[in-house]
Amino acid sequence: MRFFKRFAQGELRLTRIEAFSDAVFAIVVTLLVLELKVPSLHDHGSVSELGHQLLDLLPKFLSWLISFIIVCKFWLNHHHVLGLARHANYSLVWLNAIFLMFQSFVPFPTALLGEYPTNPLAVCMFGAVMAFNTLLFIAMHAYILRHLIKPELASSQDPHVIRKSFIGVVSYLIGASAAWFSVHAAFLFYMLTPLFFIVPPQPRRVD
Amino acid sequence: MRFFKRFAQGELRLTRIEAFSDAVFAIVVTLLVLELKVPSLHDHGSVSELGHQLLDLLPKFLSWLISFIIVCKFWLNHHHVLGLARHANYSLVWLNAIFLMFQSFVPFPTALLGEYPTNPLAVCMFGAVMAFNTLLFIAMHAYILRHLIKPELASSQDPHVIRKSFIGVVSYLIGASAAWFSVHAAFLFYMLTPLFFIVPPQPRRVD
Amino acid sequence: MRFFKRFAQGELRLTRIEAFSDAVFAIVVTLLVLELKVPSLHDHGSVSELGHQLLDLLPKFLSWLISFIIVCKFWLNHHHVLGLARHANYSLVWLNAIFLMFQSFVPFPTALLGEYPTNPLAVCMFGAVMAFNTLLFIAMHAYILRHLIKPELASSQDPHVIRKSFIGVVSYLIGASAAWFSVHAAFLFYMLTPLFFIVPPQPRRVD
Amino acid sequence: MRFFKRFAQGELRLTRIEAFSDAVFAIVVTLLVLELKVPSLHDHGSVSELGHQLLDLLPKFLSWLISFIIVCKFWLNHHHVLGLARHANYSLVWLNAIFLMFQSFVPFPTALLGEYPTNPLAVCMFGAVMAFNTLLFIAMHAYILRHLIKPELASSQDPHVIRKSFIGVVSYLIGASAAWFSVHAAFLFYMLTPLFFIVPPQPRRVD
Repeated sequence: MRFFKRFAQGELRLTRIEAFSDAVFAIVVTLLVLELKVPSLHDHGSVSELGHQLLDLLPKFLSWLISFIIVCKFWLNHHHVLGLARHANYSLVWLNAIFLMFQSFVPFPTALLGEYPTNPLAVCMFGAVMAFNTLLFIAMHAYILRHLIKPELASSQDPHVIRKSFIGVVSYLIGASAAWFSVHAAFLFYMLTPLFFIVPPQPRRVD
Repeated sequence: MRFFKRFAQGELRLTRIEAFSDAVFAIVVTLLVLELKVPSLHDHGSVSELGHQLLDLLPKFLSWLISFIIVCKFWLNHHHVLGLARHANYSLVWLNAIFLMFQSFVPFPTALLGEYPTNPLAVCMFGAVMAFNTLLFIAMHAYILRHLIKPELASSQDPHVIRKSFIGVVSYLIGASAAWFSVHAAFLFYMLTPLFFIVPPQPRRVD
Repeated sequence: MRFFKRFAQGELRLTRIEAFSDAVFAIVVTLLVLELKVPSLHDHGSVSELGHQLLDLLPKFLSWLISFIIVCKFWLNHHHVLGLARHANYSLVWLNAIFLMFQSFVPFPTALLGEYPTNPLAVCMFGAVMAFNTLLFIAMHAYILRHLIKPELASSQDPHVIRKSFIGVVSYLIGASAAWFSVHAAFLFYMLTPLFFIVPPQPRRVD
Repeated sequence: MRFFKRFAQGELRLTRIEAFSDAVFAIVVTLLVLELKVPSLHDHGSVSELGHQLLDLLPKFLSWLISFIIVCKFWLNHHHVLGLARHANYSLVWLNAIFLMFQSFVPFPTALLGEYPTNPLAVCMFGAVMAFNTLLFIAMHAYILRHLIKPELASSQDPHVIRKSFIGVVSYLIGASAAWFSVHAAFLFYMLTPLFFIVPPQPRRVD
């Protein structure tokens, strides 16, 4: 029990946690492009061969684009949610670390989706990972609202915000399930889901 | 309509947006060098074989150099333009995210240019991507000038700055078109274009 | 002698050292995921083939997870320990640089562990590297406690903290030795060791 | 002429230039480890095979270590030299950008040195690149001393510091020349040269 109590202690500055998180987010979105490999051509000067090869890369372009938007949305909401906290304790540091761990995992399911866009398992896994990431984010959000909220912001929080956040989880899971019937439907869900909370709740809040 | 109105809300600190952007710029310029792969030699100790292989890498060195300069120029102008804003709102965050998305895309056309410097499509694509990046940057600049400019700086802005910025777009597109006639001409345009706005407009402004 | 004396000089701001360190930590944890390569399938649409290939990646997932937690723990303790110093001198800068050098080395033994989880040498090396990293961290901690501690924090430090830190070194070395008898025992030690000091000592300290 | 005059204009905050530079330095040192590739074994469980393969990696470990120390030394001196400037102008921004360009190039000659440690051209090139990097750094240092030095620090600067800095250039070039007679001698020079200015000049200066 003492082990768990220690996590509630500590008053860390948020700036260094933000700096670490920002760097992780930035590296993740930039690594995504590494999956776009230069195609190897038999005839180096052939326009038509290169054109066909680039067209074959379309699923990779699309999965890169979707993941980029999703990670940026997480970054924006992360920015918003950390702004609600008066400081960090060790629980928040570790909730954040586990959240960043699975953010840094995103390039893998993205590459899988881009490489095998017709394989239901690959398409399903993408949605499952994003649902899990959203869950981890909700855990952080809920922890801050319950334990670390700045007193002056407490009253202005939407009491249903956590429940509403589950819309994203459910939507990703619907996409992941749809993958087994139609990968196109799954892609559509993955593109539409980030539109929820593309702007954080309570934009009235002045940062 | 309510969906779009929410983007105009929010007052975010610029520092964390700058930190995120700086990290993306830094990773992009550093990833560029990963395309310079160590050549594989039959005779590990052969000076002449290594010499020839390094000479074959010249187009890659050149495309690395051009892209590095271009991205640094974007960084410098990004620094200048964000300095004009009094704060960020969600529109600016997303304009910035989309701009960074295509900055992080730069290693791909750079690698293509370095690998197939004689392929018109590869050479053309490089210019098209840079033109598009410049357009995205102009969108951010124009948005800040119209909606978020610091009151004290409003009067000192060149009213034609946005129109002048299109010189860069046009110049990249001329290079991209030239690629179909002469790849050397295209390379020349790509090297000269960054000289426009290599120093941001209005250097009188004190940061 | 004059050569060594110069290291004790200098009063550097800690912020830029923290920024550099944070970036290194962030890149290290994010690079870890690059070892998770997309498997190549004969039948692109085959769910069972992809499923089996993903299961084969389990040791890589596990070594990624362990290393991520370990590096995050180093980050957190680094944050804590630098917070004890009133400023940095050149000795601390170089102790920090050598510590970061071996942090940035972590992706190599992690990849080795993930690729050859049944090879005693690969499993042993992981523990040996982590023990060495912990030693480098202890050196930094001890140097700060002896030479750079903030006067107001000096009295509140646990006088046995350095001796206690060796528990981590010993535990990693037991894991490294166990690898030669049972790789499963070694994995277990590698997973349990980060639980020591998962929260820095003296959480009473206000940052 | 007007083109060049514009570079002397602008008063930019140093913080964002430092943040960009720190990120580039951090990525460069962390990318260096990517050259250490996991060896492929015929017998996955064989200790002796893995042992031999790791021994074959020794030149790569050594070149990684040398480059890491060199880049950290550049980082430390960069930190020192930017601390002398009262602000940045566009000339400094571009001198810094070109310096960072060739810092980000370091992984390439490092990989070459690690892959072909007995090839005189590979060994020579490493020293030549480091000499060039040192020259670029001297250019930045000299520019700051001449145009941007903080008034209160001007009198305390060693008037011969620029001339002394050329020791590093000469030493790297001697190593690069030695490579054609003895690669071991070259390695020795590359290891010893960073010891010059391993602590920035004038450690009396309080940051």
